[in-house]
Amino acid sequence: MSVGMFTSFITRHWFSPAAIEIWSDNATLQAWLDVEAALARAQAELQIIPQEAADRIVTCCRAEGFDHDRLSQEIAFTQHPFVPVLKQLEERCGEPAAGFIHWGATTQNIFDTAIALQLRQTHAHLTSTLQRCEDHVGRLAHQHKATLQAGRTHGQHALPMTFGFKAAAWHAELRRGRERLVARADGAFLTYLGGAIGTFAAMGGKGRAVEEAAARLLGLAPARLPVRSSFDRVADYLAGFAVLAGTLQKIAGDIVFMQRTEIGEVEEAFHMGKVGSSTMAQKRNPSAALVLVSLCRLLDARMPLILSSMVRMDEGDSSATNVSDIVVSEMAILAASIADAAERVLGGLQVNEAAMARNLELTQGLIMSEAAMMQLSPMIGRHKAHHLLYEAAQETSTRGTPFADTMGNALKSVELADTRLDLSPSAYLGEISEIIRDGSSDAELQP
Amino acid sequence: MSVGMFTSFITRHWFSPAAIEIWSDNATLQAWLDVEAALARAQAELQIIPQEAADRIVTCCRAEGFDHDRLSQEIAFTQHPFVPVLKQLEERCGEPAAGFIHWGATTQNIFDTAIALQLRQTHAHLTSTLQRCEDHVGRLAHQHKATLQAGRTHGQHALPMTFGFKAAAWHAELRRGRERLVARADGAFLTYLGGAIGTFAAMGGKGRAVEEAAARLLGLAPARLPVRSSFDRVADYLAGFAVLAGTLQKIAGDIVFMQRTEIGEVEEAFHMGKVGSSTMAQKRNPSAALVLVSLCRLLDARMPLILSSMVRMDEGDSSATNVSDIVVSEMAILAASIADAAERVLGGLQVNEAAMARNLELTQGLIMSEAAMMQLSPMIGRHKAHHLLYEAAQETSTRGTPFADTMGNALKSVELADTRLDLSPSAYLGEISEIIRDGSSDAELQP
Amino acid sequence: MSVGMFTSFITRHWFSPAAIEIWSDNATLQAWLDVEAALARAQAELQIIPQEAADRIVTCCRAEGFDHDRLSQEIAFTQHPFVPVLKQLEERCGEPAAGFIHWGATTQNIFDTAIALQLRQTHAHLTSTLQRCEDHVGRLAHQHKATLQAGRTHGQHALPMTFGFKAAAWHAELRRGRERLVARADGAFLTYLGGAIGTFAAMGGKGRAVEEAAARLLGLAPARLPVRSSFDRVADYLAGFAVLAGTLQKIAGDIVFMQRTEIGEVEEAFHMGKVGSSTMAQKRNPSAALVLVSLCRLLDARMPLILSSMVRMDEGDSSATNVSDIVVSEMAILAASIADAAERVLGGLQVNEAAMARNLELTQGLIMSEAAMMQLSPMIGRHKAHHLLYEAAQETSTRGTPFADTMGNALKSVELADTRLDLSPSAYLGEISEIIRDGSSDAELQP
Amino acid sequence: MSVGMFTSFITRHWFSPAAIEIWSDNATLQAWLDVEAALARAQAELQIIPQEAADRIVTCCRAEGFDHDRLSQEIAFTQHPFVPVLKQLEERCGEPAAGFIHWGATTQNIFDTAIALQLRQTHAHLTSTLQRCEDHVGRLAHQHKATLQAGRTHGQHALPMTFGFKAAAWHAELRRGRERLVARADGAFLTYLGGAIGTFAAMGGKGRAVEEAAARLLGLAPARLPVRSSFDRVADYLAGFAVLAGTLQKIAGDIVFMQRTEIGEVEEAFHMGKVGSSTMAQKRNPSAALVLVSLCRLLDARMPLILSSMVRMDEGDSSATNVSDIVVSEMAILAASIADAAERVLGGLQVNEAAMARNLELTQGLIMSEAAMMQLSPMIGRHKAHHLLYEAAQETSTRGTPFADTMGNALKSVELADTRLDLSPSAYLGEISEIIRDGSSDAELQP
Repeated sequence: MSVGMFTSFITRHWFSPAAIEIWSDNATLQAWLDVEAALARAQAELQIIPQEAADRIVTCCRAEGFDHDRLSQEIAFTQHPFVPVLKQLEERCGEPAAGFIHWGATTQNIFDTAIALQLRQTHAHLTSTLQRCEDHVGRLAHQHKATLQAGRTHGQHALPMTFGFKAAAWHAELRRGRERLVARADGAFLTYLGGAIGTFAAMGGKGRAVEEAAARLLGLAPARLPVRSSFDRVADYLAGFAVLAGTLQKIAGDIVFMQRTEIGEVEEAFHMGKVGSSTMAQKRNPSAALVLVSLCRLLDARMPLILSSMVRMDEGDSSATNVSDIVVSEMAILAASIADAAERVLGGLQVNEAAMARNLELTQGLIMSEAAMMQLSPMIGRHKAHHLLYEAAQETSTRGTPFADTMGNALKSVELADTRLDLSPSAYLGEISEIIRDGSSDAELQP
Repeated sequence: MSVGMFTSFITRHWFSPAAIEIWSDNATLQAWLDVEAALARAQAELQIIPQEAADRIVTCCRAEGFDHDRLSQEIAFTQHPFVPVLKQLEERCGEPAAGFIHWGATTQNIFDTAIALQLRQTHAHLTSTLQRCEDHVGRLAHQHKATLQAGRTHGQHALPMTFGFKAAAWHAELRRGRERLVARADGAFLTYLGGAIGTFAAMGGKGRAVEEAAARLLGLAPARLPVRSSFDRVADYLAGFAVLAGTLQKIAGDIVFMQRTEIGEVEEAFHMGKVGSSTMAQKRNPSAALVLVSLCRLLDARMPLILSSMVRMDEGDSSATNVSDIVVSEMAILAASIADAAERVLGGLQVNEAAMARNLELTQGLIMSEAAMMQLSPMIGRHKAHHLLYEAAQETSTRGTPFADTMGNALKSVELADTRLDLSPSAYLGEISEIIRDGSSDAELQP
Repeated sequence: MSVGMFTSFITRHWFSPAAIEIWSDNATLQAWLDVEAALARAQAELQIIPQEAADRIVTCCRAEGFDHDRLSQEIAFTQHPFVPVLKQLEERCGEPAAGFIHWGATTQNIFDTAIALQLRQTHAHLTSTLQRCEDHVGRLAHQHKATLQAGRTHGQHALPMTFGFKAAAWHAELRRGRERLVARADGAFLTYLGGAIGTFAAMGGKGRAVEEAAARLLGLAPARLPVRSSFDRVADYLAGFAVLAGTLQKIAGDIVFMQRTEIGEVEEAFHMGKVGSSTMAQKRNPSAALVLVSLCRLLDARMPLILSSMVRMDEGDSSATNVSDIVVSEMAILAASIADAAERVLGGLQVNEAAMARNLELTQGLIMSEAAMMQLSPMIGRHKAHHLLYEAAQETSTRGTPFADTMGNALKSVELADTRLDLSPSAYLGEISEIIRDGSSDAELQP
Repeated sequence: MSVGMFTSFITRHWFSPAAIEIWSDNATLQAWLDVEAALARAQAELQIIPQEAADRIVTCCRAEGFDHDRLSQEIAFTQHPFVPVLKQLEERCGEPAAGFIHWGATTQNIFDTAIALQLRQTHAHLTSTLQRCEDHVGRLAHQHKATLQAGRTHGQHALPMTFGFKAAAWHAELRRGRERLVARADGAFLTYLGGAIGTFAAMGGKGRAVEEAAARLLGLAPARLPVRSSFDRVADYLAGFAVLAGTLQKIAGDIVFMQRTEIGEVEEAFHMGKVGSSTMAQKRNPSAALVLVSLCRLLDARMPLILSSMVRMDEGDSSATNVSDIVVSEMAILAASIADAAERVLGGLQVNEAAMARNLELTQGLIMSEAAMMQLSPMIGRHKAHHLLYEAAQETSTRGTPFADTMGNALKSVELADTRLDLSPSAYLGEISEIIRDGSSDAELQP
């Protein structure tokens, strides 16, 4: 029965197929078995279990053929999530190898290490997708480095800028978002093999060596002090997802606004057949950007669960790990999905330069009031200049007279009738071009 | 591919099968079709569409036979969640009936009304389960109205009480939790048929009558002002789920504590075959109570998403409704699941009266210090009494002398050597028995 | 030293002065003393303590003259928040009355009951302010029942509507928000006098009568089963604040959007001297609406703390009540402050009908595509009509031809050249006027 | 009027006095002025403003003497948080210097840079306090490396361990928590001087140089692309606070549990005069640990506000920055306060070795069941061993027979009557001593 957002026919296309695959039951089971296999190999290397047993275990650690319904029923009956898996694995291995499976480990060791494997896969997909997002945005920055657009604060036109500047700012955040994850990955993707409470009690004195060897085999770092109640390293990595979602929701929000009927400065990719409404034929909604916003919120809302599941009783606490096991997988799928969605949105973005130019004119020149003040201040002092401008601006706002005219009158009133202020937006772009250029000089914003 | 907590073989048994069924794709599709059918019937009644068309539509509104994969693909292609459903429905109806499907409605009308139907079903299951939980707890209150137990505050023994009192307090919260939902249900389960922006523009002046008639057919109230950006009524109902989760997490937390090795006052139902650990044969974990805690947290963490999805741009905003459509279904499943889990935990709870009695003795009588003060205060004043008791208590704490002895010495020091204080816990239970009795007199706590 | 948002010179004007007063240290202390006084009076009535003692206690229960710095130091030293208050109160009363203060109660009883008193005061202020907000919005609904405006969904023009309809929808949510709080107030503002664990152990068998009598004196309902670990009744009332914040954030968001430079449909009250920027003289930011958004977020973010502080160990747990005591007061101040801010914003709102009319024209008639479809469907079937309109709409979107013209051509193509479609927005307003009228008939929307 | 948790007499002692000082109005004002001074100096260096003007500005940038009430009133009137400050500063400087204040900057530049200064101060206090916490915990790890204690999972005894192992695990998390903040500080404490929208438009082409120079003077890194809508760098640093709160809440929770009446393994520092209850003289609550839990929750609950305030409209959005300005200061005070509280709790912790030993015995040896299985498995296979142990464990649980005896019988049943299993907890500590030793070898756990 299909239920839940990842599989429902209504919403499944919002989610990264790659990530769905990585976190599916099949892949999770395989990740568990990979950890069991690495454990057995490490223990054979260290002469804790016979090499033949390890070989047999490794051979049998294949997810294919496991009976999921039986697993599900036995898990419900035993109220234990892993003993039924071990049972099927033991049946496949047969004695004597069966006796050496899972030697000295505890269930949560297997789960936590498997999650590290799955996170690493997700991470690879996610960071390469983000890299492509950065490429798209870097291209927009360069192409539109001189495309004039109104800079807005608090919903009001503030100063002129270019669309390339906006893209450059998006780019910088995206890049930091990716780099942040990369920087934390090694310290977060760990092998935990400390047994029931993290003391390696059942490893006959060779536990730390086993953890080290298995970590090497799995390509993960060892946890070293694998107490099951320490979750800070994963939690901190996941905080990087939450911050990334903040960045992408900001970008998506900008796009939704810029595509509004009244603004029309950008438009999502459209194809004939895309439907905005069951009755309103004209609708061209920014559907993908709106979905991106939604996914970012779904991701961010999970961060408090991660933080609260750091708080674990004593040396292990399933009331917390039940939650974190679920939420880590959800956040991973969501993180990959927001990157996938961002790639679609950013890769297909249509820019309407004419609309940007048209909107820039809407204030009849008022957007240049700061520029005027900066030119006037050296002549009559900043205070007087601000006063003059405030009055002129109110007049333009109230009566609709172009700002150049109200300013002309204002200048006369202070006996500066001959002064010519440069009120062209392109003359007040500050260091936008240098910012975009230097961004690219260190390979940030490739043209 | 199985992915997501509701369907994964690892966790699916945590969730209410009834609720999973109600919110499955099949049932969701059927709920949508039920709304379309009611709409058609209402419109035929009001002579907006031909009766034959309505009859045909009603006949074809059966979820069986819809091609989910095709739906899924077309939804991804059109980026619209419902037009592909309409298309299949139109194919089934054929002309001319096809032309009268979905007349004057918008997609979100169908979704919101369907959700109301599904919530109502969930509500019925949930409230009857809660009723059974109350019965279990009411029984515990009566059976253990005199079973002495330490009352604890801030983790420390405070005053003596009975386990029945604890159960009575659980009962009162549970009952209020259920009553709260019942009180809000009618105002939250609504029929929305206002069309694209809620003005009934496409209903030819009969929109409110259509909404009223369809509501009657569906057994739901009409929304009356069905602007798509108003979500407060559902949000408020769902807040009742969140508060219920707070109650059940508190109860589950009490049980987890009382089952701790050192306390041992209660134990979850155990059956041979239940496994606590893959290696530690002795483990009898309070697994079901721990799962209950986890589910309550998963539920509560969704409330912020409901609140933020109340904030909708203008007359409709899919960045919000994408989220709320998902989260309402998740919260509904979780609410039913915490009730189901609570029923299992509470119905099977084993009470160890001996352990309660043993723990009550742990402070060597100190738990009666307030009782002693209340007896002494009339004799020597409250201040002097508190001072005397503070000193005596520190001595008992530090040296381990029984409190009766340190109090005896203390009484001598104030020349009350002959005074006999009643330090038996059963003499200091306050009005516990009246509270439990009166609870039952108004049918709250049936014996 | 001024620190914290309620008192900082930067932000204090955002907060309701009335609520700040209610929750100030002075008023909190007075509320505690009011509870102590009511307790003493009730106990004298019931002959538990001497009438003279009660009289003396009542007389001394005045917050004036308490030494706050001494309280603060002693609270830090004793690590107890109330014993130092009792000490000063005892000093004022002198013996023998001092010995009868706080008889049989516990600190949290006093705190919880005082909070109920403070919540009730906040509630009165809040609901009357909300009533005035509703009046403002009701007036807008009537004044602008026919003021045409674009209805928007997903950021795109959808159907025509009127600004009065938007106001009516705001009104309905606001009214429900207020009614919700009113409905819950009686069940949430309670007197708790159960003593250390809620059993009335120290009340000599008259505890429930004392609670009842004190409740009567304080004008609050009795808790009846005052176990300190039950917080659901207050939590549920506070959920009403959170839902209200959702409503007001939605309204504020609409206003911020409608005041955007490109939209210009409404404007917050402006006065000469209001400053938008330290350098940009032209800025007329919707500052009050933006502050309202911020306050709503600050309020909503506290709801998870309320839910998690329902989860209390055993019969009392300061790790939870420390949090809830703080957060209840913050949410109360925030709730009053969002109502105050909403009153300012809504009371001063300037409506620009011309801008609404101008924006309505922006799509060159496309906003009437659904109207066209509803007129065409009876002639050529809904399917064909939708196809025709989809094509015509794309042409208008792409080439900028007015929709009336592309529709004219389209009609020719299906041999309906003589058909006249009514494409005037005012003809497609659905039942807006009835909705607004009926709203007022039951006193909802007074003209 | 005192209101709000930081200043109320009830709670102010919970908060770090050092952090309260750093974030007080006075210090905030001074931080703003420090930024203005650095801006002026940088601009004089770069010959944008006259050196004399800069000197005068620097001299006048002293918070003493500013009229806070006037500021507060003018801020409320202008609805601008900074123009009134500029006005007073201009009055102090007099012309011509007044005209060169705040040259080319925008209000949010000053606020954001000032917050960076205040965060840096908080960071210094916090990290040095955390270092002392680590020292305390490291000492506990060494002192108790061999102090036997029950290792617990899911609330049940699992394996034997030592209290030193628990302390070592705390230590590792604390150290990572501190290192995480240190690693992020440089990238998060930034100078923003890009003006109204981040383009340096008003800096005459020297904006980036000004930002660089001012950054050098302030000891902060330059933002380089100072668009006001980018908040990711600060948000990510603050996520480090949230993760730290997770760690400290876990530790505090362990302590609250270990101090429970039934456990008694540790106790917070107690001094005569500390009061647990107004009526129960015996109470020795873990008040400081409970406050620590509360503060951690208050901190973590603010993380969602930080994430949502990353989502900013366009180039600047006060609906978000209103929130983040407040919440950053609150999280900073809370972070310093949880560290201060942790230092008090950890520095004064009393360890009761006898109670640990006594509790370890509670299961009558069952805590050694895994140890028994690891010894038996090589003799009879793991499966048979587990079966034998499961049966024996149930018998001990049910009848109370010591595990050594039930095991003895069990061994007889499999003809291993002569086998001697080592069931002493100290023989099953795994690699605890190496973990603690190696912790210290790299200076982590100093003895």
